[in-house]
Amino acid sequence: MDHSLDELFADVVAGRLSAAEGAERVRRLGYASVGDFALLDVSRAARKGVPEVVFAEGKTVEQVVAITRRFLEHDPVVLCSRVTEEQAAALAAEVDGAVEHDPRSRVVVMRRAGAAPRQERGAVGVLAAGTSDVGVAAEAVAMIRAMDVAAITAFDVGVAGLHRLSGPLQEMREAGVGALVVAAGMEGALPSVVAGLVEAPVIGLPTSSGYGYGGRGEAALMGMLQSCSPGLAVVNIDNGIGAGATAALIARAAAR
Amino acid sequence: MDHSLDELFADVVAGRLSAAEGAERVRRLGYASVGDFALLDVSRAARKGVPEVVFAEGKTVEQVVAITRRFLEHDPVVLCSRVTEEQAAALAAEVDGAVEHDPRSRVVVMRRAGAAPRQERGAVGVLAAGTSDVGVAAEAVAMIRAMDVAAITAFDVGVAGLHRLSGPLQEMREAGVGALVVAAGMEGALPSVVAGLVEAPVIGLPTSSGYGYGGRGEAALMGMLQSCSPGLAVVNIDNGIGAGATAALIARAAAR
Amino acid sequence: MDHSLDELFADVVAGRLSAAEGAERVRRLGYASVGDFALLDVSRAARKGVPEVVFAEGKTVEQVVAITRRFLEHDPVVLCSRVTEEQAAALAAEVDGAVEHDPRSRVVVMRRAGAAPRQERGAVGVLAAGTSDVGVAAEAVAMIRAMDVAAITAFDVGVAGLHRLSGPLQEMREAGVGALVVAAGMEGALPSVVAGLVEAPVIGLPTSSGYGYGGRGEAALMGMLQSCSPGLAVVNIDNGIGAGATAALIARAAAR
Amino acid sequence: MDHSLDELFADVVAGRLSAAEGAERVRRLGYASVGDFALLDVSRAARKGVPEVVFAEGKTVEQVVAITRRFLEHDPVVLCSRVTEEQAAALAAEVDGAVEHDPRSRVVVMRRAGAAPRQERGAVGVLAAGTSDVGVAAEAVAMIRAMDVAAITAFDVGVAGLHRLSGPLQEMREAGVGALVVAAGMEGALPSVVAGLVEAPVIGLPTSSGYGYGGRGEAALMGMLQSCSPGLAVVNIDNGIGAGATAALIARAAAR
Amino acid sequence: MDHSLDELFADVVAGRLSAAEGAERVRRLGYASVGDFALLDVSRAARKGVPEVVFAEGKTVEQVVAITRRFLEHDPVVLCSRVTEEQAAALAAEVDGAVEHDPRSRVVVMRRAGAAPRQERGAVGVLAAGTSDVGVAAEAVAMIRAMDVAAITAFDVGVAGLHRLSGPLQEMREAGVGALVVAAGMEGALPSVVAGLVEAPVIGLPTSSGYGYGGRGEAALMGMLQSCSPGLAVVNIDNGIGAGATAALIARAAAR
Amino acid sequence: MDHSLDELFADVVAGRLSAAEGAERVRRLGYASVGDFALLDVSRAARKGVPEVVFAEGKTVEQVVAITRRFLEHDPVVLCSRVTEEQAAALAAEVDGAVEHDPRSRVVVMRRAGAAPRQERGAVGVLAAGTSDVGVAAEAVAMIRAMDVAAITAFDVGVAGLHRLSGPLQEMREAGVGALVVAAGMEGALPSVVAGLVEAPVIGLPTSSGYGYGGRGEAALMGMLQSCSPGLAVVNIDNGIGAGATAALIARAAAR
Amino acid sequence: MDHSLDELFADVVAGRLSAAEGAERVRRLGYASVGDFALLDVSRAARKGVPEVVFAEGKTVEQVVAITRRFLEHDPVVLCSRVTEEQAAALAAEVDGAVEHDPRSRVVVMRRAGAAPRQERGAVGVLAAGTSDVGVAAEAVAMIRAMDVAAITAFDVGVAGLHRLSGPLQEMREAGVGALVVAAGMEGALPSVVAGLVEAPVIGLPTSSGYGYGGRGEAALMGMLQSCSPGLAVVNIDNGIGAGATAALIARAAAR
Amino acid sequence: MDHSLDELFADVVAGRLSAAEGAERVRRLGYASVGDFALLDVSRAARKGVPEVVFAEGKTVEQVVAITRRFLEHDPVVLCSRVTEEQAAALAAEVDGAVEHDPRSRVVVMRRAGAAPRQERGAVGVLAAGTSDVGVAAEAVAMIRAMDVAAITAFDVGVAGLHRLSGPLQEMREAGVGALVVAAGMEGALPSVVAGLVEAPVIGLPTSSGYGYGGRGEAALMGMLQSCSPGLAVVNIDNGIGAGATAALIARAAAR
Repeated sequence: MDHSLDELFADVVAGRLSAAEGAERVRRLGYASVGDFALLDVSRAARKGVPEVVFAEGKTVEQVVAITRRFLEHDPVVLCSRVTEEQAAALAAEVDGAVEHDPRSRVVVMRRAGAAPRQERGAVGVLAAGTSDVGVAAEAVAMIRAMDVAAITAFDVGVAGLHRLSGPLQEMREAGVGALVVAAGMEGALPSVVAGLVEAPVIGLPTSSGYGYGGRGEAALMGMLQSCSPGLAVVNIDNGIGAGATAALIARAAAR
Repeated sequence: MDHSLDELFADVVAGRLSAAEGAERVRRLGYASVGDFALLDVSRAARKGVPEVVFAEGKTVEQVVAITRRFLEHDPVVLCSRVTEEQAAALAAEVDGAVEHDPRSRVVVMRRAGAAPRQERGAVGVLAAGTSDVGVAAEAVAMIRAMDVAAITAFDVGVAGLHRLSGPLQEMREAGVGALVVAAGMEGALPSVVAGLVEAPVIGLPTSSGYGYGGRGEAALMGMLQSCSPGLAVVNIDNGIGAGATAALIARAAAR
Repeated sequence: MDHSLDELFADVVAGRLSAAEGAERVRRLGYASVGDFALLDVSRAARKGVPEVVFAEGKTVEQVVAITRRFLEHDPVVLCSRVTEEQAAALAAEVDGAVEHDPRSRVVVMRRAGAAPRQERGAVGVLAAGTSDVGVAAEAVAMIRAMDVAAITAFDVGVAGLHRLSGPLQEMREAGVGALVVAAGMEGALPSVVAGLVEAPVIGLPTSSGYGYGGRGEAALMGMLQSCSPGLAVVNIDNGIGAGATAALIARAAAR
Repeated sequence: MDHSLDELFADVVAGRLSAAEGAERVRRLGYASVGDFALLDVSRAARKGVPEVVFAEGKTVEQVVAITRRFLEHDPVVLCSRVTEEQAAALAAEVDGAVEHDPRSRVVVMRRAGAAPRQERGAVGVLAAGTSDVGVAAEAVAMIRAMDVAAITAFDVGVAGLHRLSGPLQEMREAGVGALVVAAGMEGALPSVVAGLVEAPVIGLPTSSGYGYGGRGEAALMGMLQSCSPGLAVVNIDNGIGAGATAALIARAAAR
Repeated sequence: MDHSLDELFADVVAGRLSAAEGAERVRRLGYASVGDFALLDVSRAARKGVPEVVFAEGKTVEQVVAITRRFLEHDPVVLCSRVTEEQAAALAAEVDGAVEHDPRSRVVVMRRAGAAPRQERGAVGVLAAGTSDVGVAAEAVAMIRAMDVAAITAFDVGVAGLHRLSGPLQEMREAGVGALVVAAGMEGALPSVVAGLVEAPVIGLPTSSGYGYGGRGEAALMGMLQSCSPGLAVVNIDNGIGAGATAALIARAAAR
Repeated sequence: MDHSLDELFADVVAGRLSAAEGAERVRRLGYASVGDFALLDVSRAARKGVPEVVFAEGKTVEQVVAITRRFLEHDPVVLCSRVTEEQAAALAAEVDGAVEHDPRSRVVVMRRAGAAPRQERGAVGVLAAGTSDVGVAAEAVAMIRAMDVAAITAFDVGVAGLHRLSGPLQEMREAGVGALVVAAGMEGALPSVVAGLVEAPVIGLPTSSGYGYGGRGEAALMGMLQSCSPGLAVVNIDNGIGAGATAALIARAAAR
Repeated sequence: MDHSLDELFADVVAGRLSAAEGAERVRRLGYASVGDFALLDVSRAARKGVPEVVFAEGKTVEQVVAITRRFLEHDPVVLCSRVTEEQAAALAAEVDGAVEHDPRSRVVVMRRAGAAPRQERGAVGVLAAGTSDVGVAAEAVAMIRAMDVAAITAFDVGVAGLHRLSGPLQEMREAGVGALVVAAGMEGALPSVVAGLVEAPVIGLPTSSGYGYGGRGEAALMGMLQSCSPGLAVVNIDNGIGAGATAALIARAAAR
Repeated sequence: MDHSLDELFADVVAGRLSAAEGAERVRRLGYASVGDFALLDVSRAARKGVPEVVFAEGKTVEQVVAITRRFLEHDPVVLCSRVTEEQAAALAAEVDGAVEHDPRSRVVVMRRAGAAPRQERGAVGVLAAGTSDVGVAAEAVAMIRAMDVAAITAFDVGVAGLHRLSGPLQEMREAGVGALVVAAGMEGALPSVVAGLVEAPVIGLPTSSGYGYGGRGEAALMGMLQSCSPGLAVVNIDNGIGAGATAALIARAAAR
């Protein structure tokens, strides 16, 4: 609408359109005024500073490559999550730009060729309670770093050994983390414990580990939501992308 | 925005604003262009022909009266659902306009004083499987009639006596109903059966009758969603208002 | 029964059957009087104008072919849903008639050889929120078109970019759609939004995308049922066939 | 204990044991008196007239063969349910006796070589609502026939075509069925309908067909439990064996 | 239809109706042939020998009295379940006929004044596991006796004291019970145990006792459905009426 | 059986019964041998050392008094749980013996008049995470002490303040507790934490505190079951009686 | 430990304790070193800057007053949530300090008499979708303001009228909010929509409004967790306190 | 901390550190005092006498080998659960020490080369209800024996044949078992029955057998939690490791 608006007003000033006609034009847009809204929205990635994410699961290699290319036209950074080895290889081979791929997270981060060098601003601490939570935690890390925020990680800390927490938490405090992501499955107690120990807000990230009653992340999600530790909010089971994005937004704001 | 748009263009034509300034004004609106959208939206009731509904449960008598009055300034008809006897009495005593109140439905329909006389267009058949489904079915009837669509009712038909269906269905066919609302609790089989017998679309309306496993409408909702009868769609448990509105929209369109 | 009834009475009048024998014949029908009912029912497809559907999942190639052939003897159009590539190929090769197969929908539409040319009557708008909702939406489209109703589609509109809605909705309005099918997974918000913007009834079609708590369509179904947008009814998760049939019935009636 | 009891008393009478010693022997049995109970119990199959069932799923071919052989030493008839093709072949090849195998039911019925010829007593009607319910219904049939009760079947009757019921029900009435098993998935309405039409008790057999909300038999089970049709009791989802056994027990008693 | 059919054909033979008119008459019945079906259905109580039941919960005293009177016009026996003290008193005072009221069951059995003296045929054993299961078990007893079947009861037998079972079961065997109703809440194990000990079919009746996980009858229902005891079928939680009706039907058939 | 057995054999030896008749007598006992079993079972309370419990909720004052009296004839100690104030007063006034009543636990412990003085053997530690868990924890304490096991309590320790644990745990260790009961609602993390710190087995006791998703004890139960702390087993939500009984059994054995 | 440590070392230096004794003292602390931890923890409120909260539901007036007094000894600000009118009056009358009480939120904020004047730092935007969400949103506001963070509110914005959002969001942007709390029941779509429009992180706050399937906040929670809007994290249903605390922590950090 | 503490005090005494510096050193440890806590915790296996468990599912062969080796450096015994054949072979080939592998349990027990010979102390009885429960029961046995506690097993006892219990229970009593583990799927009744018969505490171990409603262990878990048998506590579905560890802890204490 931007360009046509200038021309529209030029036409009115030039007498090519009457004032009434000009008003009518804008008025007629009717739903098109929603289009303005859309223009802003199209640039959601730019506005929020959160890269677009291509959920690769269930998509063909061709689809993933094509969608990634299209996004890269608009955005300097794009994430592809839950990629197969084959999809990751195709992205590396067929899409221009820098590729970062951490097999644990199954995330590929594509940066447009020639994009401005990154400067990290703010930091997030990312903890994983157990080995089986590392993949989801790594997904959060990939998003955080793609948002040019530093990620300080401590995987496999476990609740069983609360003492193992003291070192990493001290390190994260010293790094001035603005937020923490804490991934945990099973009973999911770690985020509550951490939220009781640190000053920064904590994003609880339940993971789908565990079996039997409350398995596949259900007990973890429930426990985090029931927790009375202040400063703890959660995302859905296995949603490392979402946890990372929220934590990075917080950390970036805190670092301003 | 309408009025200011005319003035804006008048200002541009009159030279009080340059073309660039005019464009900038509109451009600056940014989110305000969402405001256009809002103007349309404010008139949702008029546009969709579905009256606004005041959910009275948990509101004070004063709140219900005040909200109803405010809506009546914009709309010729307003519904208050789940009203208590006290709320119904207050609406009748304190709000101007015609009041219709069916105690079974616990709905009060308020029509603005001096509103144009209604003309029914289209017809909906409303069936209730059992005595305990009548209240929810009556809620649908209240909405249908408030939308100036005829409602032909047959309550207490039951699945157990499928034969009891033939008379009402014949009557509804002859009345040319464009849609049916079929309320049922327990196992909720009636909507499926009806959808297999009539040509018109059926809105399944599960009710919260029944106890034990699948009680409180759960089995009814599930059964309707699992049904393979063609032309059956559902609303939520006890949502007579929603079922009536959808059926009346369909019937009105079919009667055009 | 119609024909034999005339003959039966002719036989009685002609003395080929006594009155008692005639009464006995009808009486013996006993449940066969239910059979009258059945005769109507057998022609359900004709009566409702909704083609029979062969749910191919879990059936052998031979079974699918045989059942399809049998249905085609009675009905001019038959759908096979959730077909494999192999089943689709067999239908094309071994069943007489015209075959339409959209791999996204996994539906094969069989039209009897020599069936009367179709004339579209009425139109339905079909929207899909995301890429993963396209298959189910395409299933609805297949049914709509098999019912000789026009389908205007807009896939991948997304709630995130509400602006993307304005164009398709305008096009659908201009085409005079009598109903819309809106497919959405995840939180399933699109049908509510659309129902708030359009005049026509909306059939919400939750899809089994999404993972974690509320995944596999549960949050989408719940959200649509909880919605207070007027004119929104729903079908079960992934039931594109049912959504298409109901929407097409509505649209056809509205187009009369 | 039976045999040793006679000997025990013979020993007492013969003076080989004193009265006190005899009493002590029985007294010492202590929990062994529970053993009496066990002796009866071991012959559960004989007592109840319900053959033992080997649930073959998850067992090796060798295990199935060995367990079946062991049961056949005590009982004239043994069922193996959910057998694979390979297990069925091994049973036929390696176990002595007559083999009946219906691939639809995945049940193998083994009759001991030289077992007395069967005489049917009583009859059960078995109905299946749809094609996907046939396997589970056939499991019930296998059990009924293994209990030497006649099974009269009508598969694929469907609720959509209630008229299709009249013929089979008439036939079953004429055969004097003492009970009916009615298998249905999806919304599971057929058992309710049948229980409203017949005099005999009906065993509702929900099957795990159907998808989405209420899928995998949940809606069917709920609907049957919510039904207010008199004379309807249910078994668990896909438990054709249990439905058949209960119905055959009823029919046998009614035929006495 | 029977009588009018003879007359109809007599009219045709007599020339009072042409063959075409006769055929048209039958043809016109159309849905009326469903009406025949209805005539049978109206007499459901007579046909199945199961009295109609007025579910009194949520009904006014006047409604319960009125509905009961109407049913008594057609049927010699009517049950009112879940009655309040006030409803029970009104039924006794205002409805003609014999009243039986067991406060534990909250069931009132009304027998039409002058109804034929009852003769019991068949017998059902009714067991309740604990004190809190007695009310629901008594509901079953009320239905069984209203169906003129003997009920032999043993309440408070409990699983914890399996030994307490032996006396009652022996008594029931000697009375020749054709079926048993076994009510149990909590983990609901009693029906399984009983079904393993008796020859007759058992109707498991879960009751809504118990709290916490699996409380309100859920664990009881689940446990009964998971049981592998042969000859056990279940009804819904707290559905004593249904359990009694099914058991009485079985017992009556077995006693023939 | 004991006495009659001696007489029976005496009769055989004396020739008053033949050997066959003696064997037949025992054989005929059949289910009566189950009666032996029952005799043991009747004395369950004595055998297991766990007092009988009268669940008072939903019972009348008269019923509670009567049942308690009956149990006291056999057992020296009886518990009444979930008593109202009125029931507690009636027990104190109308039942002979010593009464202990802790209003927090709503348990009344009745000791038979003249029962032997208690001697504590073994000790259990009982912890409650928060104020709302105290009632359920006190229920466990009442059972433990009724079993003559010492109970060392620490209520309101909370997970939020893990440090508050060290004192109580040290005290419990020094008292030589053989087991711990740890009551917690909300996310229920305390039992896991304690099980990781102490050597003795821990009985997790989820309480029905908490609201929203996972409320009413569901998250607490799930979390305890998902916990990987060794030596942690659980009872149902709010089952303080059960937790106390199990813990006291363990502690008593450990103290032997 | 702080003070005694100085004295301990002084004693060692002064020779009142040997080095070995000093080491032993610290060593013996053993779990007491956990006590250090506790000392920090006791001051959790101070450390995190989140006031302690007394959950008043189910507590007596006396308990609420006593606990509040005790907390006020340590902390300058204490919240009491879910207070009754009576509890609120007692707090105002009997506890020293300034009282703030918003009846909508049912939260009382107690500030210690003579506490330092507050200075707001940072701002949070709080939105409520509907009238029934206001109470929970007001709970969040009470916490935010108790944390000396500004709260800018917009209640009753609704999703149905998305346009109503533009004004409040613009105001919040201009106020530089560091985070938003968005309360919504029913389908809970508002937080997703807002998170797509604003740069700041959003805390989704599901409320227990809504009935039927997905009612009582379940659909709202699910929908928020399924949302793919970046920067959205959630708290449990009706947990306004938790949402406010997390949002205020974020806003405070962003305002530094 | 131990060693440095001695040195620290020596330094203070020696004047190498002032009293204030010494206090500061300890004070600075701050979170490091949590480290003390950790030192204890690191030796959790030693302290509790429960070996560490490597959950092998989802881990690579290399990971399982590496983690096992690391644990064996600290602990004399380590368990690997849910191992594949390949993982078991690698452990046997590549890790030093004695290997015990029971394919039914899928557990490998590794004992450090040269570890002290084991001496059994205490005994646990382990029962499995059916064939499909044996694997999980065997997992418990592996843990019990790894804890040097005797395990007396009776698999396939079943509830259907309660008599089969008497022998094994007698044997277990005679062996002086201090606790029992009872594994059961389906309706999971066996643990309740056993807890009613034995004096020792029972750990209920639900297994994920069973299908349909309540399948995969849900009914078993619920039933055990609902049981009112005294002395029964449960672990999660299929958690043989946890059941074994708790039972062995109890038995060991009882054997002291």
